[in-house]
Amino acid sequence: MKCPMPITEYRKVLLAHGSGGKLTQELIDKIFLPSFKNKHLEQLTDSAILNIKSDSVAFTTDSYVVNPIFFPGGNIGKLAVYGTVNDLSVCGAMPLYLSLSFILEEGFEIDKLCRIVKSIEKASKIAGVSIVTGDTKVVERGMCDSIYINTSGIGISHIKADLGYNRIKPGDKILINGPIGEHGIAILSARKELEFENPPKSDCSPLTDLIKELLENCNVHFMRDPTRGGIASALNEIAKKSKFKLRIYEDKIPVSETVEGACSILGLNPFYIANEGKVLVFVEKEHANKALKIMRKHPLGKKAAVVGEVEKERTRKVVVETSIGSEKILDFLIGDQLPRIC
Amino acid sequence: MKCPMPITEYRKVLLAHGSGGKLTQELIDKIFLPSFKNKHLEQLTDSAILNIKSDSVAFTTDSYVVNPIFFPGGNIGKLAVYGTVNDLSVCGAMPLYLSLSFILEEGFEIDKLCRIVKSIEKASKIAGVSIVTGDTKVVERGMCDSIYINTSGIGISHIKADLGYNRIKPGDKILINGPIGEHGIAILSARKELEFENPPKSDCSPLTDLIKELLENCNVHFMRDPTRGGIASALNEIAKKSKFKLRIYEDKIPVSETVEGACSILGLNPFYIANEGKVLVFVEKEHANKALKIMRKHPLGKKAAVVGEVEKERTRKVVVETSIGSEKILDFLIGDQLPRIC
Repeated sequence: MKCPMPITEYRKVLLAHGSGGKLTQELIDKIFLPSFKNKHLEQLTDSAILNIKSDSVAFTTDSYVVNPIFFPGGNIGKLAVYGTVNDLSVCGAMPLYLSLSFILEEGFEIDKLCRIVKSIEKASKIAGVSIVTGDTKVVERGMCDSIYINTSGIGISHIKADLGYNRIKPGDKILINGPIGEHGIAILSARKELEFENPPKSDCSPLTDLIKELLENCNVHFMRDPTRGGIASALNEIAKKSKFKLRIYEDKIPVSETVEGACSILGLNPFYIANEGKVLVFVEKEHANKALKIMRKHPLGKKAAVVGEVEKERTRKVVVETSIGSEKILDFLIGDQLPRIC
Repeated sequence: MKCPMPITEYRKVLLAHGSGGKLTQELIDKIFLPSFKNKHLEQLTDSAILNIKSDSVAFTTDSYVVNPIFFPGGNIGKLAVYGTVNDLSVCGAMPLYLSLSFILEEGFEIDKLCRIVKSIEKASKIAGVSIVTGDTKVVERGMCDSIYINTSGIGISHIKADLGYNRIKPGDKILINGPIGEHGIAILSARKELEFENPPKSDCSPLTDLIKELLENCNVHFMRDPTRGGIASALNEIAKKSKFKLRIYEDKIPVSETVEGACSILGLNPFYIANEGKVLVFVEKEHANKALKIMRKHPLGKKAAVVGEVEKERTRKVVVETSIGSEKILDFLIGDQLPRIC
C-alpha cells in the first residue's frame, strides 16, 4: 500500500518530530488529522471532551510491540485497533472511542508510519470507533524497535451484558468462534522462522458485532479473547478466578492444518499460541446450541465449536480430555513461547 | 527508597514477564495489585467497568519516555501520573481514572520497577485518581531504554468549565502559576550535562486542585500546561488555534536564578524548556487580579504572575515585549532542544 498522504519533506522520523514543536505539528496536520478526522480530535486540546450517554463505561489499555510490524493478515496498526476493541467487547461493552499513542524510533520511515496510520484509519472505521486523542514520542535510534503503539479504549456497556467471573457456574458450556493459533503462527512465518507455501494469515479482527449478537440472544456469563498465552493462559486465568474446574475436549478445539503442522514441526502446543480474532464464550448450558448457531452464521464464527464446560469441583484447574478419554492438566505457561506476539 | 513489596524470586525482568502466563500473573499479584488496590482493578477483566455519573467525559493519553527515569523531584512513574492528570485538568476535567501500560526492557531491575510503582501509587493517591486497568509488555534487551509508560486518563468536566480556543478573546489576560523551565533543567542536571551545587528539582505536580479553585471563582477561557516545547510551543499553538496575536511581557515571566543560569551557560531559551507543574491560564480581563490572588494563595502558585494578554490582531503570532519596550516574534521550535524530556 502506497502512502496516499501529502507527506512532509522528511522521509524519516527525526527526534524533533516528538518535540512538541513545528515538526510534531506537521505530523499531526499532515498525517494524523486527515486520517482520523472527527470533531473531537480536531479540537486538538490536551483531552477530548466526549458526550457519553451511559453511566456504565468500559475502559481498557494495551501497548503493542509486535515484531515484525507488518505480517500476513495485518500490521501493528490494525492490531492496535482490534486488540483494544476486543478487550472492550469481551467485557460486554460497545467500543466508541480510542486514544492512540506512538513511540517512534528516530530514523523510522515516514512512509511506513503512513501505511500504519492508514490501517488504523480503516480498522477504526470497520470497528466503528473514533480516534479522539493521541500522543507522539520519538526516542533515539536503538531505543525502540521501529514503532510501539498504545491504544486505550472507552466503550459503553451493552444493556444485556451481565458478565463476570462470579457469573460462571457448573454446567456452563465453553465455546470458541473458530480455529486457534493463527495470529501466533502468522507472526512466526513473518519472522521467517518457518517457510510456508501459503503462509497463514493472522486472524486479527473486531469481535464487537459477533459478541453483540450473542449478548442479545443468549445468556452469556463470561467472555475472554485468548491473545498472548493462547487459550491455555486465558482458560487458566478463568479457572483461577471462577474457582471451578474447566474441562476442555481436545478433539473439539478447532485447529487448522497449517497451524497444526507448524506447531508439530516447532514443538509448540497450539493451546498456547496467540489469537487476535477469537473469543472464549461461557454460556448457560441451555443456550449453548443457540450460541453456536449464532456464531456459525457470522463471518467470524463459521468454524465455531462447543469446546468444553464448567465442572462443579472447585479445583481451579483446566483439564483436557483427549479423544481416548484420558485427562491431562493444562497449566499456565511459565516461560515465554513467543515473545512480542502482540 | 527501598522496594517495600514481597518481590518475586526474579531480580530482573524476563521476557516471560510479558507473556501473559505465570510470570505476568506474578507481577500483577505481587506488585501491581497490592499497590493500586481498588475494586475496579481487582476484577482483572480485560476492561474496567466504571460508573460515571456525567455525560461530559474527558479522555487523554500520553506515553512517557523520559531519560533518565529517576531525576531530582521525581521519576517516570510520578511523571506518568501527574502528566496525564494535568492534561485532564487543563481541559476543565476532574481526573478520576487512569490506565497504566508498561513497556519493559528484558533485564530491567525488578527493584527499580517496584520503586516506580510505589511512586505511581503515591502520586495517584495525591491526585485522587485510581489505576483501574493496565498492561505489561516486555521487549528484548536493547529494544527499549529500561522502561516506557503510557497512562491514559478519564475525568468528568467541572460544571463551571467552559473552555476552548474559541473562548479566547482580545483583552484576556494570560497568567502562569510559577517559574518556568524547572522540569527540563532538572532532567539535564540528572543527565550530568551540568553540575549544580543545589541541583534544580522538577516541578512535576498535579494541577487539579489549583485549577478547580480558578474555575469556581473566575471566568477562565482556556488553559494549557506548557510541557515539552515549553511555554513558547504552547503559546504558539494557542495563537494558531485562537487566531489572535498574543503579547508576552518578557520581564514578567518568572524564571529562577538556577534555570536562568543553566540556560545562559547552555545557550538555551527558558521559554522552550519543559514544565510539568505549570499552567497557562487565559482569563477574562476583569478576573485577572482575582485569578492571580487565588493562584498565589495556593502552594503551587506562590510565584504566579500575569505574563501577557490577547490582542485583537488576527496574526496568530506570539510576540515578546522586552523590558526596553522592543518586540520580537517567539516562534515554534523547529529542531528539538531536549529530546526525551517527558
